[in-house]
Amino acid sequence: MDKKNKLRVLSGIQPSGNLHIGNYFGMMERMINYQTKNELFCFIADYHALTSSPSAQVLSSNTFNAACDFLALGLDPDKTTFWIQSDVPEVTELAWILSSQTGVGLMDRSTTYKDKITKGIKPNMGLFSYPILMAADILLFDSELVPVGKDQKQHIEIARDIAIKFNNKFGDTFIIPNPDIEKKTQLVPGIDGQKMSKSYNNTIPIFGSEKIIRKKIMSIITDTADINEPKAKDTPLFKLYCLFASLKERESLSEKYDGKGLRYGDVKIELFDKVMDYFSIFRDKRKMLFSKPDDVFDILSIGAKKAKLVASEILERVRIASGLNYRL
Amino acid sequence: MDKKNKLRVLSGIQPSGNLHIGNYFGMMERMINYQTKNELFCFIADYHALTSSPSAQVLSSNTFNAACDFLALGLDPDKTTFWIQSDVPEVTELAWILSSQTGVGLMDRSTTYKDKITKGIKPNMGLFSYPILMAADILLFDSELVPVGKDQKQHIEIARDIAIKFNNKFGDTFIIPNPDIEKKTQLVPGIDGQKMSKSYNNTIPIFGSEKIIRKKIMSIITDTADINEPKAKDTPLFKLYCLFASLKERESLSEKYDGKGLRYGDVKIELFDKVMDYFSIFRDKRKMLFSKPDDVFDILSIGAKKAKLVASEILERVRIASGLNYRL
Repeated sequence: MDKKNKLRVLSGIQPSGNLHIGNYFGMMERMINYQTKNELFCFIADYHALTSSPSAQVLSSNTFNAACDFLALGLDPDKTTFWIQSDVPEVTELAWILSSQTGVGLMDRSTTYKDKITKGIKPNMGLFSYPILMAADILLFDSELVPVGKDQKQHIEIARDIAIKFNNKFGDTFIIPNPDIEKKTQLVPGIDGQKMSKSYNNTIPIFGSEKIIRKKIMSIITDTADINEPKAKDTPLFKLYCLFASLKERESLSEKYDGKGLRYGDVKIELFDKVMDYFSIFRDKRKMLFSKPDDVFDILSIGAKKAKLVASEILERVRIASGLNYRL
Repeated sequence: MDKKNKLRVLSGIQPSGNLHIGNYFGMMERMINYQTKNELFCFIADYHALTSSPSAQVLSSNTFNAACDFLALGLDPDKTTFWIQSDVPEVTELAWILSSQTGVGLMDRSTTYKDKITKGIKPNMGLFSYPILMAADILLFDSELVPVGKDQKQHIEIARDIAIKFNNKFGDTFIIPNPDIEKKTQLVPGIDGQKMSKSYNNTIPIFGSEKIIRKKIMSIITDTADINEPKAKDTPLFKLYCLFASLKERESLSEKYDGKGLRYGDVKIELFDKVMDYFSIFRDKRKMLFSKPDDVFDILSIGAKKAKLVASEILERVRIASGLNYRL
């Protein structure tokens, strides 16, 4: 397929520390897959991460780690434009320009902002303006498709609203983006049975030490059914196992669950082996990348250059449209 | 005096169309005077101007005109760092970084924002975040002194709050700026007797045509006192005359006002001559600059380069302090 016929997909992810299995099956695997059939633009959103007030040390190390994670998991910098958000500061200029075209009421209606405040997070102006920076992320690259979870759908609508309003006022400037909302998101259970999430402290890290991963898997919650009773399959251990098993293996485990003599401990050991096996190549690559930061920096520099080339052209279009170019 | 012993003064002004006598005596004359004893950083604030939603054509022409105005009125680009705000987009990056360190409540308390909303201006996010961009303007250049009117005092306090909070969290990064509030601001009356202001449509433009200036001056409001009565001196015509007259001339006019036979028309004609005379060199220079836009662009490019040099260094300090530099 000719590159021009490919839809341009944009995806940005906040660097938030240890990647876990839930991140991978919930979102990253799907995202990285875009690179085969689409023109993928993918960035690590460190400007966004500032809004949750990390320390400098945490932010910078999370950012570098997130870059290693993506590359290790198969993001191909030759196919994809991959960069760190703050290496292309043009996005903050666009965010300012857009902010003057965005009603305060539109931000007030943001449900993710309201949710955060409800959770007791102290509202800062970065959090409040979050959807504007996200609109700038999207519009700065003529993005056509933005894969998001349901909770982020409103942000895409805000980006569309801003773009349409701008185009109406200043003439056609922005491509109007569309959301790509995953319908059948895999819900990955955590070791306590809730959705796997860093905030529940119930994750199985992908790049943790063998010891940690084993410990986490061995502590997956199970019921107290007798060894000779059949076992329930709508349970975290069974579901997690299925993520890593072939159809045949799943059928085989299902039979064991229906029969007698199954020990959860054995399933856990098997799951541990499967997890280690599944991520083994990724883990090796991650180790290699982490040990050669300069190579990673080079990849990111090239990515930033590619992103800047696209961004500058579109930003110039915006500057001219909105009257910032007094030289004309 | 050694340059290092000079206080660094920052001043930014929105490009808002025809400059008038009130602007000049109220603020610009004073501001330009800073360049003799201080290290003056002065810019035309076109990013800020976006918040009042001008058309592209109006914004770009106002920006260019404002640059010509300043240079014509004596701003010396060899002494002063003079630039157009949007030529140094680093300020928008700093604004984003600061926004994450700024409580929404601090913006809610901004009286200039409240005033604008009360006046019926539709609130956009640029207006709401205005004090953050202004804080970025100030902090990006290690400004020590910021000359402002009383109405802008709160903005400097906000900039100080943001800088102090940032320094406390991330270590000493910003110079804490001080406001320089003019105590004896000259109140320049407009032709209707109210304060001279574009919004009252009562201005005498500095760079308007002779015909317009004459028309405006001839329509300065006066009382209907009989020619043989003494005249009141707390009046717009008398005050405006005094702005342009020597001490001797003022005394002479004062005597005429106290005596008989004074015709307001004669005073107006004399005032017109004085105004034309006072601004004659400025008007010639303005004409020359306006006819050579490339020369003005060159001056502005050099100014932007000088400003960028200072800004980049300080921004790098901020990026490192806040964790945006993952390469470290």
